[in-house]
Amino acid sequence: MIDVVRLTPERFDEFIELVNALADYEHLNRPPADAVERLRADAFAPSPRFVALLGLLDGKAVGYAITLETYSSFLAKPTQYLEDLFVLEDARTHGVGGRLFDAVHDMARTNGCGRMEWQVLDWNMLARDFYARRQATYMKEWLVYRITL
Amino acid sequence: MIDVVRLTPERFDEFIELVNALADYEHLNRPPADAVERLRADAFAPSPRFVALLGLLDGKAVGYAITLETYSSFLAKPTQYLEDLFVLEDARTHGVGGRLFDAVHDMARTNGCGRMEWQVLDWNMLARDFYARRQATYMKEWLVYRITL
Repeated sequence: MIDVVRLTPERFDEFIELVNALADYEHLNRPPADAVERLRADAFAPSPRFVALLGLLDGKAVGYAITLETYSSFLAKPTQYLEDLFVLEDARTHGVGGRLFDAVHDMARTNGCGRMEWQVLDWNMLARDFYARRQATYMKEWLVYRITL
Repeated sequence: MIDVVRLTPERFDEFIELVNALADYEHLNRPPADAVERLRADAFAPSPRFVALLGLLDGKAVGYAITLETYSSFLAKPTQYLEDLFVLEDARTHGVGGRLFDAVHDMARTNGCGRMEWQVLDWNMLARDFYARRQATYMKEWLVYRITL
């Protein structure tokens, strides 16, 4: 059975296990202790910096999504931005990722957003196929630029 | 003389003239009346959805930037996201764009951000050169995906 629930302080350690699993999957370093404490503070602040959703398979957290609102000046409407979407490799094909995606898509509608937007690594064909099946458009003309502070 | 100031209600009409000029520049439709009113409401709400900065050349608004905070779960820090940066074609080469960019970069530092991030149209070589001169990295591996609601 699949459920999607908002992250609560009680489930924060399970959430971090999933964040670690995503870091491993992307061959990145796991967040160090100070980053974990910032994630906790930012998730549960009076004005949280993001919304985290957990995907439960038979009650166990096997996936998560992080989302927040940005803004489209062109539409003059908020954009539902999907920062992370991840499901443990062992728990795939049950539909947890789809349910997490749908939950964020529902938030976009509820929040009056004009768009839902996210970024995908170009080599991640599993993810790109997943999004293509959901009628998402790859915005070929737009390039991502960054400065690290 | 160049100044960068926060958008105030008194200068909102000048701001919209610049938004219209950017739409013309990108061959997009200008925002209709209802979108203009949403921009006003979202800019001046108790919790504004974005921060708008005006670039003044000898007191006249000739450019603007729109910025807001997103979040990097990897860094567990906010990201200063640059939604728009535009200077009227007639007013370029005076350094207004650079001053607007620097102001947003300063906000990133002040806000404790780990990154500053934005998107650029691939054909906009003027913009890409401008950002390359500012040590920005083009994140080749990241693709932008979108659903329009």
